[in-house]
Amino acid sequence: MNLKELSQMLGLSQTTISRALNGYPEVNKETRERVLQAARETGYRPNRAAQRLATGKAGSIGLIMPISPDHSSDMHFAEFQSGLAEASIVHDFHFVIMPSRAEDEEQAIRWLVASGSVDGYYLAYVRDRDPRITMAKSLSLPFIVHGRSFGLELDYPFLDVDNEGAFYDATRFLLQLGHQRFALLNGPSDLDFAHRRRLGTEKALAEKGLLLDPRHTRHSFMGDEQGYRGMKEILASADRPTAVLCASTVLALGAVRAMNEVGLKLGTDISLIAHDDELPLLKPENFSIPLTTTRSSLRAAGKRIGERLIAMINQSEPAAPEQELWKVELVVRASTGPAPT
Amino acid sequence: MNLKELSQMLGLSQTTISRALNGYPEVNKETRERVLQAARETGYRPNRAAQRLATGKAGSIGLIMPISPDHSSDMHFAEFQSGLAEASIVHDFHFVIMPSRAEDEEQAIRWLVASGSVDGYYLAYVRDRDPRITMAKSLSLPFIVHGRSFGLELDYPFLDVDNEGAFYDATRFLLQLGHQRFALLNGPSDLDFAHRRRLGTEKALAEKGLLLDPRHTRHSFMGDEQGYRGMKEILASADRPTAVLCASTVLALGAVRAMNEVGLKLGTDISLIAHDDELPLLKPENFSIPLTTTRSSLRAAGKRIGERLIAMINQSEPAAPEQELWKVELVVRASTGPAPT
Repeated sequence: MNLKELSQMLGLSQTTISRALNGYPEVNKETRERVLQAARETGYRPNRAAQRLATGKAGSIGLIMPISPDHSSDMHFAEFQSGLAEASIVHDFHFVIMPSRAEDEEQAIRWLVASGSVDGYYLAYVRDRDPRITMAKSLSLPFIVHGRSFGLELDYPFLDVDNEGAFYDATRFLLQLGHQRFALLNGPSDLDFAHRRRLGTEKALAEKGLLLDPRHTRHSFMGDEQGYRGMKEILASADRPTAVLCASTVLALGAVRAMNEVGLKLGTDISLIAHDDELPLLKPENFSIPLTTTRSSLRAAGKRIGERLIAMINQSEPAAPEQELWKVELVVRASTGPAPT
Repeated sequence: MNLKELSQMLGLSQTTISRALNGYPEVNKETRERVLQAARETGYRPNRAAQRLATGKAGSIGLIMPISPDHSSDMHFAEFQSGLAEASIVHDFHFVIMPSRAEDEEQAIRWLVASGSVDGYYLAYVRDRDPRITMAKSLSLPFIVHGRSFGLELDYPFLDVDNEGAFYDATRFLLQLGHQRFALLNGPSDLDFAHRRRLGTEKALAEKGLLLDPRHTRHSFMGDEQGYRGMKEILASADRPTAVLCASTVLALGAVRAMNEVGLKLGTDISLIAHDDELPLLKPENFSIPLTTTRSSLRAAGKRIGERLIAMINQSEPAAPEQELWKVELVVRASTGPAPT
């Protein structure tokens, strides 16, 4: 069954069928359902090249793949990408991925837009007053930001999680358990989410007249080794903290190893709360002492961003920028307990 | 500094400079080095659109992103992709990635090739008598296979690791320690690497007149949950095995959890060897009892495949298909010990 035969069978134009299958709003619901049912029954799958000609769309989303200093893979990126793929596969979209060092990202985006190979793109790893957002607003292609940028007006489409609220809640909970000395193993200092998580921590501490000790704060790539090394150094100090906040379960994996090495019992001698992106390999309940976490699914964020971006691409009229801020849950498990006396 | 200015400065044609920067073999070594040095000193970066016009190349590698049944991310794929990115970034290549269910892969490859958006592509997750390899040989674009396909003549370019040899060596080592009852937690049964790993295990067992018990063999997606569930079931049997082979450290992560739950001490009550793809999060030496492994870097394989594919793309003459088989090391740590008596 090809498009022409399907068109004859249904008595609809080939354009209408293409648009129905691609979810264009011009096609009414009844027609769309009739087309989808016929496509299912006849096993028809659209020819992508024909589709592209008919719609003028590439059928693709552009994204930048950040390159870590040691070129190792980043599970956070992989998990987000799997969510994006989940949305893409439904709408028959593919990705154009540009691996890029942080300093070359603006150029990489300009190329993506100029190449004509993508219909839209998403920006992530947002920084303060991020120049890429200003640039994206000046270009003609749909885009969506994963995160927000401190210092810029919020007039762009974004999806973010409430990073400040999450770390405020986590810190407040530890304060209620009597903790006074805190450590924070955070993501890279130039990234917006890390900035907001530190703000949330500092805000909760300030309410009790406490300050976050810069000697007990680390900013790094969110890898297992970084968590281990950071925690090891912090545990070696004379006035070591009794409560630790980690920006990722990956950092926590290393931090827990460092605690085990010096014989500290998690939840008794020292408490830890990690941010849980729901990475499939690092379920907090599978740690030998299950971790208390602030939870928000990175895959769900990827899926939602994919869906919104594809809807923006398929829309003929530009809509007002949609903005979403997801709440984060605090899930209490065994890694937190009263401050040791 | 643009291409025209660089051309005037060096007294070379713009085409020669483009070709030198893209590693074409037509440009001699001396000229290439002169161009590279000048590009470095002046900070010149080629304009990709111009480059594409000059060379007729898209500057991109195509790949299929397999979609797991539950849409969760696959660390093995992510780690391979990071190696591919390491090679791509050096040559200013990008990726065109098509997320695809296993049953739609052939169609996805046809589209990649027909779209004109890629200069070459790689095939992975190879099956027995894989029809995609036969198809790729009939198409006009450079390709390289990660793995090999049982039952097909070896006349295509590939890079594989010696999966059979690795599991033969691992099994033989466990037999020498006195083990007689084996379990195998393997990858999906239709994948070539899993087939070869089973063969290696069976071959070593056959030399001692032993058979692999099908009740103690599992084929699955290589996730943590799958390892846990498979091991849990196997440990519940009356004649439970004393030695376990895992096709990935991810499966081993779950398997070790299942052993801990029933109070088995790894390396004493039960021995385990896992295949180690050098996933950055799952270093075998960081398990509470360090794992004995067969080791081969997936990132290094990705990098090498990227380099070879880009060289094939940049070559004007087709070369004989290059074939590489990487040896795998057996690294002994604490998770293996004499069979319990």
